[in-house]
Amino acid sequence: MWQYQAPLRDIRFVIEEWLKAPEDWKAIPEFQSLDLDLANQVVMEAARFSTEVLGPLNSSGDRQGCHFDNGKVSTPDGFPAAYSAYTEAGWPTLACAKEDGGQGLPMLLVAALMEMLYSNNHAWAMYPGIAHGAYRCLRAHAPQKIRDLYLQALVTGEVLPTMCLTEPQAGSDLGLINSRAEAEGDDSYRLTGNKIFITGGEQDFTENILHMVLARLPDAPKGPGGLSLFLVPKILPNGNRNHVFCTGIEHKLGIRGSATCSMNFDAAKAWLLGEPNQGLAAMFIMINSARLHIGLQGLGHAEAARQIASGYASERLQMRAVKLPQQQPRGAADPIEYHPAIQQKLMQLKSSTEGMRTLGYWVAHLDDISKHHSDSTQRVQAETWVRLLTPMIKAYFTELGFNLSSSALQVLGGHGYIQDNAIEQTLRDSRIAMLYEGTNEIQANDLLVRKVLGDDGAALQSLILRYQEEANVCSADSDCKHFSVALARVCSQLADISDELISSSAHDPEAPYFAAGEYLRIFGLVSFAFAWARSARLARDKSDVPFYASKLETAAYFFDQLRPEVNYRLALIRSGFRSP
Amino acid sequence: MWQYQAPLRDIRFVIEEWLKAPEDWKAIPEFQSLDLDLANQVVMEAARFSTEVLGPLNSSGDRQGCHFDNGKVSTPDGFPAAYSAYTEAGWPTLACAKEDGGQGLPMLLVAALMEMLYSNNHAWAMYPGIAHGAYRCLRAHAPQKIRDLYLQALVTGEVLPTMCLTEPQAGSDLGLINSRAEAEGDDSYRLTGNKIFITGGEQDFTENILHMVLARLPDAPKGPGGLSLFLVPKILPNGNRNHVFCTGIEHKLGIRGSATCSMNFDAAKAWLLGEPNQGLAAMFIMINSARLHIGLQGLGHAEAARQIASGYASERLQMRAVKLPQQQPRGAADPIEYHPAIQQKLMQLKSSTEGMRTLGYWVAHLDDISKHHSDSTQRVQAETWVRLLTPMIKAYFTELGFNLSSSALQVLGGHGYIQDNAIEQTLRDSRIAMLYEGTNEIQANDLLVRKVLGDDGAALQSLILRYQEEANVCSADSDCKHFSVALARVCSQLADISDELISSSAHDPEAPYFAAGEYLRIFGLVSFAFAWARSARLARDKSDVPFYASKLETAAYFFDQLRPEVNYRLALIRSGFRSP
Repeated sequence: MWQYQAPLRDIRFVIEEWLKAPEDWKAIPEFQSLDLDLANQVVMEAARFSTEVLGPLNSSGDRQGCHFDNGKVSTPDGFPAAYSAYTEAGWPTLACAKEDGGQGLPMLLVAALMEMLYSNNHAWAMYPGIAHGAYRCLRAHAPQKIRDLYLQALVTGEVLPTMCLTEPQAGSDLGLINSRAEAEGDDSYRLTGNKIFITGGEQDFTENILHMVLARLPDAPKGPGGLSLFLVPKILPNGNRNHVFCTGIEHKLGIRGSATCSMNFDAAKAWLLGEPNQGLAAMFIMINSARLHIGLQGLGHAEAARQIASGYASERLQMRAVKLPQQQPRGAADPIEYHPAIQQKLMQLKSSTEGMRTLGYWVAHLDDISKHHSDSTQRVQAETWVRLLTPMIKAYFTELGFNLSSSALQVLGGHGYIQDNAIEQTLRDSRIAMLYEGTNEIQANDLLVRKVLGDDGAALQSLILRYQEEANVCSADSDCKHFSVALARVCSQLADISDELISSSAHDPEAPYFAAGEYLRIFGLVSFAFAWARSARLARDKSDVPFYASKLETAAYFFDQLRPEVNYRLALIRSGFRSP
Repeated sequence: MWQYQAPLRDIRFVIEEWLKAPEDWKAIPEFQSLDLDLANQVVMEAARFSTEVLGPLNSSGDRQGCHFDNGKVSTPDGFPAAYSAYTEAGWPTLACAKEDGGQGLPMLLVAALMEMLYSNNHAWAMYPGIAHGAYRCLRAHAPQKIRDLYLQALVTGEVLPTMCLTEPQAGSDLGLINSRAEAEGDDSYRLTGNKIFITGGEQDFTENILHMVLARLPDAPKGPGGLSLFLVPKILPNGNRNHVFCTGIEHKLGIRGSATCSMNFDAAKAWLLGEPNQGLAAMFIMINSARLHIGLQGLGHAEAARQIASGYASERLQMRAVKLPQQQPRGAADPIEYHPAIQQKLMQLKSSTEGMRTLGYWVAHLDDISKHHSDSTQRVQAETWVRLLTPMIKAYFTELGFNLSSSALQVLGGHGYIQDNAIEQTLRDSRIAMLYEGTNEIQANDLLVRKVLGDDGAALQSLILRYQEEANVCSADSDCKHFSVALARVCSQLADISDELISSSAHDPEAPYFAAGEYLRIFGLVSFAFAWARSARLARDKSDVPFYASKLETAAYFFDQLRPEVNYRLALIRSGFRSP
């Protein structure tokens, strides 16, 4: 049976060497008291909590699932207690501001925590997963009275929030939302409507639940510009039960320990967050935060899959390998890790997983810089990059998370298909991440149409410059020269295809929508190339240490695959399929 | 809720126009009495049976699963009755020889039946799925006494067979099998050992079960050359219970209505089939038959996925499309089938599914020719091609079946993730086909190392000549010229990479194993190109009929994607990743 091993060595490499985060922290007043030792302690504690408390509940939670009875939801055995342990250890407070009772630590450390939560128990991690986004949203948009009532409870984890967006007829298209709210005359509203696919809409972790609900005011314009954001607490400040009830839960392919609820709001008491008809913008604080976390789900799944596959491949003996390492004794059959088809899968798992970790943590670190850095130029630039990278992180990472789970399952052969081996659950759990918080197709349109075409490629250009800078530094090192050349080459290919799409979209507005999916993958690949070129350069001088030697070898594998794949995806865009 | 519609129009196109099967049947004594009308009747009856009897049991069978209690297995409600209906309708007799009480119809019609069984209920179809292979094997290798006892019962479906190969330590590597058999002195043996992953090892469809078991005789050499094939009936000819028992069933990702059994043979009475130590060759009659059927599972899943996705996409309204067909009225939101990202998925589903049907049925037809054609040159050539195409059909189709199920699931967004919509089950069920009867990696090695390198590319060359012949015919038609050029081009690319691999393997025996996976995909793509070029040429003159217009449009889509993908996979092979 597989036992998760927190990838502490690689996490340390990313935080300390790749990001050089401690240097940046010095320039951020908020993080003055933070140093590498403290950061490492937090990461190790997060590893311990995830591994010891959540890991053991993953399979049992999946088999037991959630149960719905007359408006109440029971989560799997052990889930509520694990949440109590989570709040008692102070995990929800991690990145909340000190003035709100938080620890004021960086989102970078939250990213490490989240990766490990998702590797160990995706279903459980769904409940607290959006709490920090709700905290940010409430902090930015709630009136003082509401902040006084709930902000503290959100920081400590005493309450959990939900995001109530989807309705049966309104999924990707939030403009079709029908839920409505009418002013009560005091500062409150009455909100009526039905929502579906609400994670934790009902649960047994917390007494109270804060529903963040998109709905329409009576005079609101049609479409997304007529949505307002409301807070609907399950329990009202006076202790009464509000008129919001769970009417059922979904039976799903995966994340079965996560309660996906249908919710009925029956003139429920609500408070407006932010301005009327500006609800979508306010909600996007939560949505963007969620999208980054979902990218980390892809990483978490891939890391779990990588561990399961490589553990199995080192122990399973089948057939003789054509070649063996010198120190490996010949048997009647050899470990399958020495068979080429398995080697390729293991290398793919390693290169993708470490690439995701590097980029995912980088974006979390950029998020910290964008919010807290003392230099406003740095803040603005970091924010621009986070905005551009977010849809790629969400879509590309989750596609990888699922595909790599399938690839790892294949390493186990028929044994991968049965429940006793954890990988079939990883496959099922990972599949949701390509769908929720905006399908991956929505992310691709967001990246290309809104974020690249939207500013004629300006933000993209600044990011490509950053990537090229790395290529330049890399090129000075003769052992990394070929990585540098490859990175520079794919950077200019990305710039070229972006220019082409900017100009073709002017006369053919449908063209970018046909290109968007492959464009996002190319952008992902080029970003991975940036990550791997830098990793290789940093590992280069220490290649007598196995960890760094393996980094270099993995970089070489990545760059072998890179150009064929970039060229392929460019050719698909240019092959010109159009609607009939 | 999705309702399966048998793809009768396309099946007719393949049998009648693409294969021109009725012309070939005239040259086959066995099929003299067969004409198109009779073939169509059989296909329509198969459609009715699959749709009306099996379809309704698919979801319920998945949710209920199989249950094991004290050596007995209960299959889901309705499964045994559906099997009675199947045998009463004479389906098992379809392609059995008339002299054995069969109908003497072609395997081509079995392929159509199988496709529809798999689209409707993969789990159920597992039980009778290998019966025809066992019939062939028994017919070829069983002594007269055993044939007299069991052949008739296998033809009528009164008994069902199993394939007992896998043991805990012996999966891909059958050479590691430990089960052993000792002669009794009469014509029988005592067989002892443990087998796992045995489909229908125990069930409640038939009184008796015929286990086909690989085991070793006392003096057998080590490895695969020391395996002999035995028949172990559950109930002995004298009516006594044989000492073979089911010790448990697996809990699996999918095909939950199919009982996957662990079996214990405790000095069970056994009869030798074929010669001592020649068991693997005898078993390969069943294995090869099973591999073709598994390819048809990929097709069946893809067809189901295509139908689910296109039905949903035509009804689901979300967001305005940039462009709409002229006749489509503008709404507040448009059917998602008009959004480019969805269009691409639907076209991919259609082009792959129809391509698989054409090729899968072609191989079934070649199988008929190889066994029954009056001209021995044709028989030999057909057999050569079947042998070469089998691993591709198994691996490439099942990979497509799974990937297309995932793609179809994506079309449904979050709704694809919940049990109420059938697609999440299709995704789970389809995944097994990449694993069993030799993982797809084993198929890739079989294709390249055994079947291409094994005869220095001779068989492949004859197949490529057939493909090029189609390109030549196609090139005479100005509207199909570009398809012809593309087909000819990828044919020569396949020939080139084959030559390269033949020559590189001479000095680097590991090289083909690194190339095998992508090589199989290239071989698949080139075969699809052959199928689509011919389809386009046949559709060309009738393009005022919507069915043929859609064929042409789908061919155009396929050829747009073809060259980028072939070039990509060639580049991956040539990028040269080797083991560290």
